[in-house]
Amino acid sequence: MRAEIITIGDELLMGQTIDTNSAWIGQKFMELGISIAKKTAVSDQETEILEALLAAQQQSQILIVTGGLGPTKDDITKKTLCTYFNCELKQDPAVVAHLERMFAERGRKLLSLNLMQADLPETATTLMNEVGTAPGMWLENEKGIVVSLPGVPNEVYHLIENQVIPRLIERFKLQKRLHKTLITLQIPESLLSNRLESFELHLPENLGLAYLPSFNMVKLRLTAKNGDVTESEFNHYFQKLISELGDDIFCIGDQEPTQFIAQYLLKNNISFSTAESCTGGYVANRLMQISGISAVFPGSLIAYANEIKEQELGVPTSVIEEFGAVSEPCAGMMASGIRSKMKVQLGISTTGIAGPTGGTDEKPVGLVYVGVDFNGELTVTKLRLFGNREQIIQRTCNAVCWILKKHLNIPAE
Amino acid sequence: MRAEIITIGDELLMGQTIDTNSAWIGQKFMELGISIAKKTAVSDQETEILEALLAAQQQSQILIVTGGLGPTKDDITKKTLCTYFNCELKQDPAVVAHLERMFAERGRKLLSLNLMQADLPETATTLMNEVGTAPGMWLENEKGIVVSLPGVPNEVYHLIENQVIPRLIERFKLQKRLHKTLITLQIPESLLSNRLESFELHLPENLGLAYLPSFNMVKLRLTAKNGDVTESEFNHYFQKLISELGDDIFCIGDQEPTQFIAQYLLKNNISFSTAESCTGGYVANRLMQISGISAVFPGSLIAYANEIKEQELGVPTSVIEEFGAVSEPCAGMMASGIRSKMKVQLGISTTGIAGPTGGTDEKPVGLVYVGVDFNGELTVTKLRLFGNREQIIQRTCNAVCWILKKHLNIPAE
Repeated sequence: MRAEIITIGDELLMGQTIDTNSAWIGQKFMELGISIAKKTAVSDQETEILEALLAAQQQSQILIVTGGLGPTKDDITKKTLCTYFNCELKQDPAVVAHLERMFAERGRKLLSLNLMQADLPETATTLMNEVGTAPGMWLENEKGIVVSLPGVPNEVYHLIENQVIPRLIERFKLQKRLHKTLITLQIPESLLSNRLESFELHLPENLGLAYLPSFNMVKLRLTAKNGDVTESEFNHYFQKLISELGDDIFCIGDQEPTQFIAQYLLKNNISFSTAESCTGGYVANRLMQISGISAVFPGSLIAYANEIKEQELGVPTSVIEEFGAVSEPCAGMMASGIRSKMKVQLGISTTGIAGPTGGTDEKPVGLVYVGVDFNGELTVTKLRLFGNREQIIQRTCNAVCWILKKHLNIPAE
Repeated sequence: MRAEIITIGDELLMGQTIDTNSAWIGQKFMELGISIAKKTAVSDQETEILEALLAAQQQSQILIVTGGLGPTKDDITKKTLCTYFNCELKQDPAVVAHLERMFAERGRKLLSLNLMQADLPETATTLMNEVGTAPGMWLENEKGIVVSLPGVPNEVYHLIENQVIPRLIERFKLQKRLHKTLITLQIPESLLSNRLESFELHLPENLGLAYLPSFNMVKLRLTAKNGDVTESEFNHYFQKLISELGDDIFCIGDQEPTQFIAQYLLKNNISFSTAESCTGGYVANRLMQISGISAVFPGSLIAYANEIKEQELGVPTSVIEEFGAVSEPCAGMMASGIRSKMKVQLGISTTGIAGPTGGTDEKPVGLVYVGVDFNGELTVTKLRLFGNREQIIQRTCNAVCWILKKHLNIPAE
C-alpha cells in the first residue's frame, strides 16, 4: 500500500516554517507497514493544490493533506477540497458545539471567523479535533482516501493517533512491519560501512539496512521490506548486527542518546547535575526532558563567566590563571564542584570553545573538555570537534553521553 | 522564475530525519525573488528519483536536489543523475586532493569508499564543498538547471551561499524581492485577522500579507508578489500595518523574540541571568544564542528542586510551605535571588507546572509565574497557558520576552 503526504502553505515553501509533521507521520505509518512513497509541499494556490491531489491519487491510495485550515484568508484547503470532490461546504453542529465549549473555557469571544471552522465539505466525515479549533476531514472517491488535517503539530499528532490510524487499521486490516534500530556514537559512517560490508552482502533481499548519521552519531536501522520475513529470521540478522559492532554500540533502540542516559540514571536512582560553560545548559535541558526526572535532578548551573566558575563551583582563580578556563583541571573541578554543590552522585561539566570566535592556535574552536565525577571518581576527556557553534554543542552533548556510558558502565539495553 | 526542491532519502519519508534544509533554501531563494513552487521528497529508488526529476523539469527551470550523496550503498543520487543526463561517472582530481587534505587534517585514513565521493557525472560542474566530503554538482540540459547537493545541513548552507547563489545571480541577473516581517505576541491569529480586515481589503493586488502563527506568536509578513512594486509604495503599506497594530507589535523584523531581547540587552549593556524551574534552562539557552552575549551573561541556574530554590536563591522554606514553589512570592524571590547571586541588573525567573503530570485543581498544568527584577524593580506575572509540555515551555519563553519588553520599555525597532 502506497501513501503520500501533501503539505499546503506558502510558509513551508518560503521557509518560515519547518515541516516536522510529515516526519512524524512517516514514522507512525512505517510502523503500520504503510510506506510514505512521496511528500509534496505546495503553495496556497488552488491550481497547485488540485494538481498535487490529482497526481498523488494517480499513484497512491492514501493521501494525507496537512495545512491551510486556519481562519485567515490565505487558508484555502477546504474550498479546494470542495472543488476537487465536487461538493459544497456545510456547517457541522458538533464542531460548533466544540468551538463554543473551547472558547468559553479559555474566556475568549467566538468570532464569526472562528465559526467558519465548522464549515466542512458536505461529503467529508468530520475528524473531531479535541486539541484545536480546526477539525480534520476524511474524504473518499473511487481512487482512494484523502485525509485533510490542520498544520499545527500537536493537532496533527492528536488526529493521526486518535482518528486516522484506528480508521486505517480497521479498513485495511493492517499489521506492524518489523524494524529495529541501534545507535553508535563516535564512529564515522564510512568506517561503519566498511566494517559492515560483509554483513550487508549476506543480508537477504527482503531486509534493508539504513545509515542515519548526525553529529558523530549513526543510527543503524534494519527493516523488513515486506511481510514475508518471520520475526525469528529478522531477530537473527539484528543479533548478527549487534555482534558485528559489539562494544561500539551505544544503545539498542531508537532514542536520543540523552534520553537513554536519563532513563538509566532515573531507573538506577543516580542523582546528577551539570555545570556547563560552552554548552550553555543544552546538556541539562536534553537530559531533563523525560517524565519524572525531577526525582534525580535537582538543577544545574550554566557557568559562562570565570567568576561564576570560581564563586559557585570553587575553581581556584590560580587554576584559571595558570591553565585557562578551557582546560583539563578546570573541567575536573567544575564537575566535582557541581557534584558537591548540588549534593548529587554524578557531576558533569563542559568547558570549551564553541566558536565561531574565541579560538586560538593553542586552543582552537572545537576544543572541549568534558568532566565527569561519579561518586568521587573523576575522569576528564579532551575532545577536538568540528563544525559550527550549534554542531559543536550537539557533538559535545553526544560525547557526554558516550563518556557517561563508558565511565558508568551502562549496558546497551 | 520557478524553482523546485527535490529531497532524496528514505530517512526523510520514514521520518527518521526532519528536513530543515529546504526551509532554509526557501528563505534564501525568496530573498532573490525566486519562489520555490514545490518541494518533493522521494525515496532512495532510481525510478522514483527519475520520475521526480522529469516532472519537476516540466514546470520549473531550477531544480535543487539534496541528499543521497553519502558513501554508503543506499546513496544512489549520482548514479541516477548519470542515467538522467546520459553520461558516466568520472573522478575529479580536485576533489581527491580536497579529500586527502581533509582526512589528513582530522587524522583519519582515507578509505576507497571515501574516495568514491570524487566520482562525479562527467558533464557536471563540481561545486567544491569546503566543509564536507561530498561535493555539489551543477548540471544543465535544454529544460534548465539541476543542482545536486549533499543532505547534511551545514554543507547545504555552505554550498548554497558560496556556490549556488552567486551562479544564479550571475546567470539570471537577479534582484532582491521586497518583503518585511513584524512580530506580535499574545494576540490570537483570529483576533489579529479581524483587526486587519480593512487593511487587507485595501491592500493592492501585488502585495500579500501572510500570518505565521506559533506558540502565542504571530509573524506577519508583507511581500511584494512581483517586481512592479516600488520601494516607497511597499514601505507605505508596511508603515500602515505598523500603525494599525501600534503597541501590540513586539518587534519589527524577522527574528526570534529571544534574539531580539538578547540583542537589546547586549547593545544596552544590561547584564542578566535566569533562575528557571519549569522551563529548565530553555530561556537562558535561547537568550545566549547570539554572538558576544558573554559580555552581559555570566550564567544561569536551573532550580528544579525546592532545596535548590532555598539554598541557592534564598527563597525561605516558609514561603514554599505557605504558598508553594509555583506561586507569586516564590517567582519574585527567585528573580531577585538570581539577580543578587549573579550580580546582574536583570534577574528573570520561571516557576510553573509544565505538565503532563503535577497539575491540581488549584494549580493546573499550564499555570506559570514569571518574575522579573530589573535594578530592584520587581514584577511577577501569572500566566495560564495551554498545550503540551513543550508548548508550555515555548509559550512561557515567548511570554518572558513580552514581559521584558513591557517592563524594560523596549522599543519595537
